[in-house]
Amino acid sequence: MNQSTLSLNTEKNNIEVNSNKILKSRRIYVQGSRKDIQVPFKEVRQENTNGISESEKNPAITIYDTSGPFGDESISNDPDSRVDIKKGIVSLRSPWIDERKDTEQLSGPSSIFGKERIKNSKVVDLKFPLHKNPRRAKNGNNVTQMHYARKNIITPEMEFVAIRENLRRKEFFSFLKDSGEITKKHLDRIMKFHEGESFGAQIPFEVTPEFVKEEIALGRAIIPNNINHPESEPMIIGRNFLVKVNANIGNSSISSSINEEVDKMSWGIRWGADTIMDLSTGKNIHETREWIIRNCPVPLGTVPIYQALEKVDGKAEELTWDLFKDTLIEQAEQGVDYFTIHAGVRLPFIPMTADRMTGIVSRGGSIMAKWCLAHHKENFLYEKFNEICEIMKSYDVSFSLGDGLRPGSIWDANDEAQLAELRTLGELTEIAWKHEVQVMVEGPGHVPMQKIKENMDLQLDFCKEAPFYTLGPLTTDIAPGYDHITSAIGAAQIGWYGTAMLCYVTPKEHLGLPNKDDVKVGIITYKIAAHAADLAKGHPAAQIRDNALSKARFDFRWYDQFALGLDPDTAKSFHDETLPKESMKTAHFCSMCGPHFCSMKITQDIQEYAKSKGINDQEALKRGMEVKAVEFVKSGAKVYQQV
Amino acid sequence: MNQSTLSLNTEKNNIEVNSNKILKSRRIYVQGSRKDIQVPFKEVRQENTNGISESEKNPAITIYDTSGPFGDESISNDPDSRVDIKKGIVSLRSPWIDERKDTEQLSGPSSIFGKERIKNSKVVDLKFPLHKNPRRAKNGNNVTQMHYARKNIITPEMEFVAIRENLRRKEFFSFLKDSGEITKKHLDRIMKFHEGESFGAQIPFEVTPEFVKEEIALGRAIIPNNINHPESEPMIIGRNFLVKVNANIGNSSISSSINEEVDKMSWGIRWGADTIMDLSTGKNIHETREWIIRNCPVPLGTVPIYQALEKVDGKAEELTWDLFKDTLIEQAEQGVDYFTIHAGVRLPFIPMTADRMTGIVSRGGSIMAKWCLAHHKENFLYEKFNEICEIMKSYDVSFSLGDGLRPGSIWDANDEAQLAELRTLGELTEIAWKHEVQVMVEGPGHVPMQKIKENMDLQLDFCKEAPFYTLGPLTTDIAPGYDHITSAIGAAQIGWYGTAMLCYVTPKEHLGLPNKDDVKVGIITYKIAAHAADLAKGHPAAQIRDNALSKARFDFRWYDQFALGLDPDTAKSFHDETLPKESMKTAHFCSMCGPHFCSMKITQDIQEYAKSKGINDQEALKRGMEVKAVEFVKSGAKVYQQV
Repeated sequence: MNQSTLSLNTEKNNIEVNSNKILKSRRIYVQGSRKDIQVPFKEVRQENTNGISESEKNPAITIYDTSGPFGDESISNDPDSRVDIKKGIVSLRSPWIDERKDTEQLSGPSSIFGKERIKNSKVVDLKFPLHKNPRRAKNGNNVTQMHYARKNIITPEMEFVAIRENLRRKEFFSFLKDSGEITKKHLDRIMKFHEGESFGAQIPFEVTPEFVKEEIALGRAIIPNNINHPESEPMIIGRNFLVKVNANIGNSSISSSINEEVDKMSWGIRWGADTIMDLSTGKNIHETREWIIRNCPVPLGTVPIYQALEKVDGKAEELTWDLFKDTLIEQAEQGVDYFTIHAGVRLPFIPMTADRMTGIVSRGGSIMAKWCLAHHKENFLYEKFNEICEIMKSYDVSFSLGDGLRPGSIWDANDEAQLAELRTLGELTEIAWKHEVQVMVEGPGHVPMQKIKENMDLQLDFCKEAPFYTLGPLTTDIAPGYDHITSAIGAAQIGWYGTAMLCYVTPKEHLGLPNKDDVKVGIITYKIAAHAADLAKGHPAAQIRDNALSKARFDFRWYDQFALGLDPDTAKSFHDETLPKESMKTAHFCSMCGPHFCSMKITQDIQEYAKSKGINDQEALKRGMEVKAVEFVKSGAKVYQQV
Repeated sequence: MNQSTLSLNTEKNNIEVNSNKILKSRRIYVQGSRKDIQVPFKEVRQENTNGISESEKNPAITIYDTSGPFGDESISNDPDSRVDIKKGIVSLRSPWIDERKDTEQLSGPSSIFGKERIKNSKVVDLKFPLHKNPRRAKNGNNVTQMHYARKNIITPEMEFVAIRENLRRKEFFSFLKDSGEITKKHLDRIMKFHEGESFGAQIPFEVTPEFVKEEIALGRAIIPNNINHPESEPMIIGRNFLVKVNANIGNSSISSSINEEVDKMSWGIRWGADTIMDLSTGKNIHETREWIIRNCPVPLGTVPIYQALEKVDGKAEELTWDLFKDTLIEQAEQGVDYFTIHAGVRLPFIPMTADRMTGIVSRGGSIMAKWCLAHHKENFLYEKFNEICEIMKSYDVSFSLGDGLRPGSIWDANDEAQLAELRTLGELTEIAWKHEVQVMVEGPGHVPMQKIKENMDLQLDFCKEAPFYTLGPLTTDIAPGYDHITSAIGAAQIGWYGTAMLCYVTPKEHLGLPNKDDVKVGIITYKIAAHAADLAKGHPAAQIRDNALSKARFDFRWYDQFALGLDPDTAKSFHDETLPKESMKTAHFCSMCGPHFCSMKITQDIQEYAKSKGINDQEALKRGMEVKAVEFVKSGAKVYQQV
């Protein structure tokens, strides 16, 4: 077997790639009820619309921004704000955690493995330079956001996410204001925002801290924020909020190194990943993770069984509860925000997979199946679930209940094994809630379109509206190399139906470990699926960004069109391929149709005419068009911009 | 304005790119009731599954193939079968057309423009070398497939498409046979094929020529086959058949040349485009089109108003019915199979677009709007619709009724203008059907997910089940550079709901003219959407390909996995990026998870065990697992393939 390539290269040039200036953007902060609640957004500046007679201002557009301090760099271009990954990023939440006085700083890690790694001289060169002792709930306190919510406490974390989710309300209200007096037509327009079909989701017009608290108390949403990851900016996962996207990174034993993974993390959040999962399975998982967490402004998830398996040299049958428990504590004390736990892979379900086209395709699921098979015993994760909850609540680690028996092919979708496991995940959700531990539930996988909704409906039913977190699903198996697309089709649908977070799939799925380009393409693809779902659900103000971009397109404000998109760099470079000159950035056509065939130009003429006459209703316009027809021919009927 | 780059380069090396050998594939032909009905398919050979005790054969998989004689090359690698684009491809349908004795060969083109081009000395070097006189219905005959169908005649074209649509029935039946005797469980599996949700589509288990005839007679499907394009291999567009994909090519005045367009056409069909639209708007449209048609084995569509506009130097107000009519005849006599006609852009609808976010975004729609505005007259395409039908039925050109008022942004979706036009397209459909002219109807555009189904439902209602042919729809506007993906999400859904053909969108949409890479990505993306729709509708045997690929994946038959996919080249190159060695093509893992974490391997062990014991039901398996647990530990519990 190949050894993993061990290297650490934290030279500046490694992260500069990720801090290139983002087009026409700046970082803004919205302050909450206290000075240390500073919620970051990206703001995109827009040019004016230059009409024939007047110039119209276009408002700056606010964009949800997950890039944290790395985004300060890429947006401000201020060298002082550059992240030094050897120091890690600022511990935003430390004061909030401290002042709750329900946790204590330990004198060192309490896991056996954690202690061993401190002393291990072989990994000295790989270690994150600044050692920090972990924090834990004191006196058996429960320190979860769910616990506070049920105690009716609004935490700064809850207020932070409320402000964050209230995205674009400012633009929304100025959009309403700019439209002038409220007319019947105007009200119709406002109603258009609410034309979404939300399948029972209850999306508030305005997100308040109170609403956030309620949703968390009910278990319908989670804020995955380990007390040992104070660097993370709070975000919320729940179907009454914006749909989120997770990106997986992590080395395998075949390739990738620590600095590559840190680089992929900052790259991932640059493009909008809401959480990152570190799925490393190679050597030095502990050290890799430390580097990632200390630099990571979004929640970090892991699958602890991967590391546990490495500790027993890949021999699943040698896994024990004690070893696994130590791994949970080790990772909880490093700051992992959510754990995928495959406690639903129960012994009696394993034979149900024997007749499948592709058996068990979850790594964690197959490890547990192997263990169950070797011992002919019930899954120890299931048996020890209460003990796991005790650990989770001491650090506020959220569950991501793993779907170890998800289908790995269209043929296997929604089968007995999958649904038996899902029902079990529902039982486990209720146990976790008794402990006031936050829970989300993982879902498939490979599912043809007509079977997607059943997944969502059953999950809501079995798991009592705990947030659903799905991988894809892929809607066909016939496109290796394009599974970001086969799965985005399913992800957009399941997001619309109510899934709270979508786990991305990259073009390399089934074929190899994704590189940086793949990570980017995977995230952009999933941001598309998530936003399409937000629109379809009728999320207030989601459409403001589509409108702004469409108007920029219609106005031929090319730079605004690029900057408002999910990937300004690619949009600009595609445009530049055929029309690289700066003058073409204001041209009233592109190379797709050329100047004679640009449909947008003639419409502008119709609209300009209507505006100049102050005509507002259709009848008047109709009458006016007779006059216009004469004018039009007189003036040589040249509405196209000639070049 | 830039002149279009005129060049012709028909050297072999220009088309060799498109005839690289396709992995593990060969061309096969299925013969119909007569010797000259030879329906082409691609057949992918599979390796055996190598189990521990025995080796299992895997059947060759048949794939619908649109690549025509170019596919003979790329599949057979026989130099004799290489297409010489200066000669054009074989006229497959000529005998069928001849023997109907309802057409006559003219002494030359009957359009004024067609005659002029023959004499024009400036374009001599650009002309297709072999001149062929056009054919036309004699004595006012109607030569449409709809006319024959209504006369209860099954044409060779109908039989050809029946065989073509019966794809994979052979594999389907051998799948049933291989599964052994018919048990209850077995029947359940068969039923799984019919679990699709088809929204009223009536998909037959077996497609017969009789069924094809009925569908065409009812107007629910079309075979777009101009008598002047005998080179085309018949295909059918209708919601009870496989969902089809169209790819647009064509130069704009800014870039691209004739040979590039011929090259894009053959490139497009290599990747599975079912029809091609030539949307050229630059100079020498006539000559470009002739080269394309003479080499094109799939139906070719155009938007005749584009060329008509070029004839009046881009001045829409100078368009006349006579000029347009001459253009229709010119193109019908070259062999264009379907015309997009924007006859639904009626004068009273134009003011409805004044208040839109992005006005009119169809090129044809904006040209007609400009004409209507300039003259303040009703659209002449609407007024002269009966005369247009007379031309269509003399050559069997199908209508693609253009949606000139489709929404160009999410905000404008399903508005008054769009739906008023759609209702008009319904009226026009009925007029065309009175003439027994084949019709499909174009649809949007930009539509958020929750409004897609309304489009399909209204189209079925207004247009009496005439096939729907949609562009996307794009489900969000915020991702320029990725609109193949924003639209594939909508395309898969609308295909599922009943759209018969999906017009592709490339990554360059809104930004520039697509190059060859963009064309390929656009087509593969839309093949995914179309296949996902076929699966969801429960199309019999659609799933056979997914199953074959999934089984190959599970068996670690890497080459089979690549070859069965939509893009074998990309799948293989992605795999090779991290594991290029030939030995890795049989390895039981890839670089994504590495050898210790490959979930597929352990499942194989469970299944092998079940098979070796002849255990078929769950209870027995459960009991067996106790024995297995002992064995498993004894043998060192190494189920992973070690490297």
